[in-house]
Amino acid sequence: MSITNASAYEAAKSAKSASHTLATLPTSARNDALTAIHTALSEAKEDILAANARDLELAKKAAENGQLSLSILSRLDLGKKGKWEDMLKGILDVRGLEDPGGKESTESFVAISKVISAALENTQVPNTAIQLVTTRDAIPQLLEQDRFIDLVIPRGSNELVRYIKSSTKIPVLGHADGICSIYLEHSVDPDLAVRVVVDSKTSYPAACNSVETLLVEEAALQSVLPPVAEALLAKGVSLRCDANTKAALTLHLPKSSSAILQDAEEVDFDTEHLSLVLAIKTVPIVTDAIIHINNHGSHHTDVILTSSEEIAEQFMSGVDSAGVFWNTSTRMADGMRFGFGTEVGISTNKIHARGPVGLEGLMIYKYKIRGAGHVTAEYGEGEGQKSFKHQKIEL
Amino acid sequence: MSITNASAYEAAKSAKSASHTLATLPTSARNDALTAIHTALSEAKEDILAANARDLELAKKAAENGQLSLSILSRLDLGKKGKWEDMLKGILDVRGLEDPGGKESTESFVAISKVISAALENTQVPNTAIQLVTTRDAIPQLLEQDRFIDLVIPRGSNELVRYIKSSTKIPVLGHADGICSIYLEHSVDPDLAVRVVVDSKTSYPAACNSVETLLVEEAALQSVLPPVAEALLAKGVSLRCDANTKAALTLHLPKSSSAILQDAEEVDFDTEHLSLVLAIKTVPIVTDAIIHINNHGSHHTDVILTSSEEIAEQFMSGVDSAGVFWNTSTRMADGMRFGFGTEVGISTNKIHARGPVGLEGLMIYKYKIRGAGHVTAEYGEGEGQKSFKHQKIEL
Repeated sequence: MSITNASAYEAAKSAKSASHTLATLPTSARNDALTAIHTALSEAKEDILAANARDLELAKKAAENGQLSLSILSRLDLGKKGKWEDMLKGILDVRGLEDPGGKESTESFVAISKVISAALENTQVPNTAIQLVTTRDAIPQLLEQDRFIDLVIPRGSNELVRYIKSSTKIPVLGHADGICSIYLEHSVDPDLAVRVVVDSKTSYPAACNSVETLLVEEAALQSVLPPVAEALLAKGVSLRCDANTKAALTLHLPKSSSAILQDAEEVDFDTEHLSLVLAIKTVPIVTDAIIHINNHGSHHTDVILTSSEEIAEQFMSGVDSAGVFWNTSTRMADGMRFGFGTEVGISTNKIHARGPVGLEGLMIYKYKIRGAGHVTAEYGEGEGQKSFKHQKIEL
Repeated sequence: MSITNASAYEAAKSAKSASHTLATLPTSARNDALTAIHTALSEAKEDILAANARDLELAKKAAENGQLSLSILSRLDLGKKGKWEDMLKGILDVRGLEDPGGKESTESFVAISKVISAALENTQVPNTAIQLVTTRDAIPQLLEQDRFIDLVIPRGSNELVRYIKSSTKIPVLGHADGICSIYLEHSVDPDLAVRVVVDSKTSYPAACNSVETLLVEEAALQSVLPPVAEALLAKGVSLRCDANTKAALTLHLPKSSSAILQDAEEVDFDTEHLSLVLAIKTVPIVTDAIIHINNHGSHHTDVILTSSEEIAEQFMSGVDSAGVFWNTSTRMADGMRFGFGTEVGISTNKIHARGPVGLEGLMIYKYKIRGAGHVTAEYGEGEGQKSFKHQKIEL
């Protein structure tokens, strides 16, 4: 069912009603539906890839005119080696579909949606359990359906997330970008520091879990920082240094290296560069690093590199981020790596789900009580009244 | 610190900063602060009760003029037997203060706030960790501080909650009122039904967990409904019946009872009466009860009374409410009864915390990873690369 053909009210209401049916279906019926979707998509591979090819054609033109980034173009291609298979595997893993992009993928989505709708016809899962919105016009009306919609998960730019949040009473699971920091403490093994910082910055610079800011303890300026900086420069990273780190590196690095150091501006410490740019700043001790991160970071993932367990624990308690890691890469913050399957996103919210979010992060509980005529009036402090036990139950 | 004297920005920022300090304090320091607050409040009892008496004076006049309800007036009185002691006990239980009312309690709150501020001076807990808003003017500015405020928990009317939700990007933990239903299935033991329905309706009619709607299975009209209705009438409950239930009761009850039955209007099934009024409706079978509750209820707490485990489980799966109870009172939905201590409220949200919410319902997790130089580039499908284990760990 496509929401262009129905009012947002009806669409949301029928989806809610479908969710009630889904809740009462046995697992076997839900699995049957997933299997039916999987089979139908497998059989429709040719049609869907043809629709995707038409999307790609338009997107290529948009990319040539500079209206679309090459990274979106590359994510759009369902025919790319392994992508189709991964998507189908994801369905069987009950992990949901990977998101292949925005309006650029309309034809592919319509083709996929038709196949899924048809597949559900022969199962107990209501057709309206999955609905496709093909035009942005429907979004504002959908955002008004707080009676029927429990949660909105916007996938896209920071601007999109901000727009959605300010336009609805429905809770929004925000998947913000990341300004992740690494704090370099003087006691860390320099080889370990090199490995972790290089991985955090260079293994996928466009990812939200890549490091953007390196905070260097004063006592580490002359010892640990130079080999780390040298390794980053060798990988083509632009280093934007404050005065202290620049002075230390100028002293310790070959002239050819120190000549390409850049000067950091204040804005660099509040920017998600998403490229091979790293801002570097000196801090006196760990508490200053914590304060900097809490004020300038995005509460996504922050790392301390140190051999001191005490300082590591202090950092991990004090930094108010979804992920606080000791001696490992910021890029470990990932649903797949955490074992959640394909992730819905990484949440910087402080309610419900925080950090990488998989299927379990979308769940909520309900309280079921199976009684035998128990009534509240029988419990209390009075004579002959019962009291509640409230014992911890061993697992 | 009172927010009348500081900008909302500074207030929110300093509270956030205080939260970061709090996170790093050892439990002993936090407990010291609670003890200090407890001691200071005990010592200031006289001053606070005097301030409260001034609030009460004004409130009594407002109540006499009909501007304030008697139930608010009664909740306002901190001098009432056991109330002061309960409040102080709550602090030691780390359960937070009970809410004694709105602007009517300004003087009491200011007195309490001053004592708490002074008590915190001599502890490691920052003074700005607890702040008092004394004027409503500050609210809109505070609701804009989504950078610093993680969660808003409005306590008050449905209108207040709705206003807050539509005025902020900050997540709102909504503590809505309750339209709770009981479904009477024909196989239930009539004595059990009488006990549970009477408790659900009459033990505290103004509470959000009291029953507002009785759904009666057609097959129970002639058997279970009459004794239940008779017991309710004996307790002074006004019964607003649909045609079928009225006909059945007219047949089975003494004329003196059936004469006082009222006719239900559609609006009765969407109303939280909060008084000794109960709307009664016939439904063919359990699935109709589920549909009625999902459409007309407030997703708070709903009960099925039946001797059939199968039908009970069907009801508990299908009803989309925080609490779904079998053969027990709706009024069991309560943080104290669940063992949560004084509750923050009962959430009908479907994210984060649902049902009765205590201290634990306000918590969120963070992911701490303690590594040894682990980097993402070493993991993958390639030759010699590591893979993630993702094993379930036995507790």
